[in-house]
Amino acid sequence: MSNFEIQLEKYAELAVKNGINLQPGQELVVSASVESVSFVRLVAKKAYDAGAKRVYFRWTDDQLTRIDYEGAPSEVFNEYPQWDADALETLANRGAGFLDIRIPNPDLLAGIDPERISSYNKATATALKPYRQARMNDKVSWCIISVPNITWAKRVFPDLGPEEGVQKLWETIFKMTRADQEDPVAAWELHKANLGEKANYLNTKKYKKLHYKAPGTDLSIEFHPKALWCQAASDNESGTEFIANIPTEEVYTLPLKTGVNGTVTSTMPLNYSGTLIEKLSLTFKEGRIVSFSAENGEETLKRLIETDEGSHYLGEVALVPHNSPISQSGLIFYNTLYDENASCHLAIGKAYPTTLEGGAKMSQEELDANGVNDSLNHVDFMIGSAELSIDGELADGTKEPLMREGLWVI
Amino acid sequence: MSNFEIQLEKYAELAVKNGINLQPGQELVVSASVESVSFVRLVAKKAYDAGAKRVYFRWTDDQLTRIDYEGAPSEVFNEYPQWDADALETLANRGAGFLDIRIPNPDLLAGIDPERISSYNKATATALKPYRQARMNDKVSWCIISVPNITWAKRVFPDLGPEEGVQKLWETIFKMTRADQEDPVAAWELHKANLGEKANYLNTKKYKKLHYKAPGTDLSIEFHPKALWCQAASDNESGTEFIANIPTEEVYTLPLKTGVNGTVTSTMPLNYSGTLIEKLSLTFKEGRIVSFSAENGEETLKRLIETDEGSHYLGEVALVPHNSPISQSGLIFYNTLYDENASCHLAIGKAYPTTLEGGAKMSQEELDANGVNDSLNHVDFMIGSAELSIDGELADGTKEPLMREGLWVI
Repeated sequence: MSNFEIQLEKYAELAVKNGINLQPGQELVVSASVESVSFVRLVAKKAYDAGAKRVYFRWTDDQLTRIDYEGAPSEVFNEYPQWDADALETLANRGAGFLDIRIPNPDLLAGIDPERISSYNKATATALKPYRQARMNDKVSWCIISVPNITWAKRVFPDLGPEEGVQKLWETIFKMTRADQEDPVAAWELHKANLGEKANYLNTKKYKKLHYKAPGTDLSIEFHPKALWCQAASDNESGTEFIANIPTEEVYTLPLKTGVNGTVTSTMPLNYSGTLIEKLSLTFKEGRIVSFSAENGEETLKRLIETDEGSHYLGEVALVPHNSPISQSGLIFYNTLYDENASCHLAIGKAYPTTLEGGAKMSQEELDANGVNDSLNHVDFMIGSAELSIDGELADGTKEPLMREGLWVI
Repeated sequence: MSNFEIQLEKYAELAVKNGINLQPGQELVVSASVESVSFVRLVAKKAYDAGAKRVYFRWTDDQLTRIDYEGAPSEVFNEYPQWDADALETLANRGAGFLDIRIPNPDLLAGIDPERISSYNKATATALKPYRQARMNDKVSWCIISVPNITWAKRVFPDLGPEEGVQKLWETIFKMTRADQEDPVAAWELHKANLGEKANYLNTKKYKKLHYKAPGTDLSIEFHPKALWCQAASDNESGTEFIANIPTEEVYTLPLKTGVNGTVTSTMPLNYSGTLIEKLSLTFKEGRIVSFSAENGEETLKRLIETDEGSHYLGEVALVPHNSPISQSGLIFYNTLYDENASCHLAIGKAYPTTLEGGAKMSQEELDANGVNDSLNHVDFMIGSAELSIDGELADGTKEPLMREGLWVI
């Protein structure tokens, strides 16, 4: 085997063993582009090697997605096929693992009627709510990874030819996901321990608030006393540890729904639903977005925020130092999976119930009462930079520096 | 556009317009290999151009199918995902059209435990029975076509290189399906009229029996007085004409379930469920298979016949002259869609209710009472050759020649 093939095998194994942590007899659902079929075959083999009961495949094709958006009549975008939602819910209830293999394409839906896109996003989120809740509550193991194609490679490495670009992007992915290391499993154990230390520090400090300052940003975020800082590894309902994002460099927690005030400006482009949103700025009053703007994609941002009441609030606060390996690469990936791990970020929309002590077992009413935001959306956007300062405010009102010039100062 | 691209467009259009005869507002379900994605995109565009409401895609990949068969535990092959069966039934009830784009691969499951294959075939046929009935009763429009890939091209043109072979196979497909003609739609109208003449002749003659003679074959088949000879075009529940097979060269009818006696030997290899069955021979007594053999794939044939009681009986009798365009090509396609249109053939298993006057509206009990065979299977096998003679026996017992040396003598 070539060195490339060895790393490819390790990467597929990482997704199955560390990402999903597939257990013997478990079902696995792999969602991928038809373009990724050769990598998916590798994943399927690794899954059966690990004792999978059965692997199901859910295929997409960007060009066909666009053909649908261009060709179908408008009313189609108001409904999501119920049988498909039922299939996902059935599989989630049976404890299947869900591996999403994503390829970003921020130009995918350029020029498509935004009404169609937002309608279908809403119909999809509504139909898939039970399934998505099973993921966000860590009821099931799930994992998101990415693989290159020519379109994505061209975005990240515009100066390289198609083959060279794809090769370079694979190398970058192997590096960022530690698949290039002798023993990726051991490397991930170490990495989880490092992130765990940060989360423990923050959970011990129990900051009442964080204060963010940067060009275009002056924001304070309050926390519930029982908010938990979390990292890479989660436990599913059966107590099996999994890693939901590969790569991941963040520690993250729950913002109090009504405790966000001030203005924040994004520092990296956001590829949301096939459209690029750049330089978005949000102003909050008691948690609610009261005004917003964007240099590009403002219409898309507007539709995102107007999806439902919960899309006017934050659902996640995540800290990533500006010297994370992904940030140090100096690359923009146009792929939230990568870009959010180069940068402190926030998410518009639904909060992870797992970021509140006991939250995973609470009813929606209890979650509401505890300021855990609910929404059809959960969309991360990047706010980190070398100019970002964050102070932590303790219960007694004392403030202390947490990040300076984008780096940890703890 | 190159000549190839023009013919490709015509072929996609033929599938949508003549095959399915897609109506404005209708849904279309396209089943295809991920390898065929570029042709599927063309089909989707043609479907939306024709006013499709929505196109759904069902993807397969031969290598993943094999990985599943090799890797999954045995019990998996006893169940078919119910949600998928439900989805197909729902779409059939809504009047969707079903386009299957097939690529044969007779080596696909070589070496796989035949028990797994027959179990899964049976589980699939059981779960999909309502959906398959909707097709066999012409409740919905359906159409089967094929596209080349390297593996199939290598089988048909073993002496050509991969690219050259695929190109040659495309050219052959365009020719056999009349997509190479200036106006394929008009060419198909003429073709349907020619086949219709044959069917009319046979429906007027009302033969009581056919007698087949050829090396290894001495067989008589009796018909119900209300059996109908049919051809290329059928009408679906809404009265829309469609063509279920492209290409098609046959006229076909219903054998009386208990009216088959003697022995028949196949003249071409049969690619059934990823395995090749060669030189199969069946002996019938009062319709039931009482003994069988095959030079290759006998175990697969045995499992096919033993699927259920109905797999011991015939469900279709089809006549194709030995000078049909596909036969004249001199090629073996290892693809029943093509090979059955080069050759007279029979089918083991379920009969088309539409081949009995009023059959499409009959209950299973009524069909049983009229000798219309029921089974989970419907598998065609080829028995035509230049050595085949067929006599027709009229109601009064007179016999007259129908085919000599494989050709019509009417």
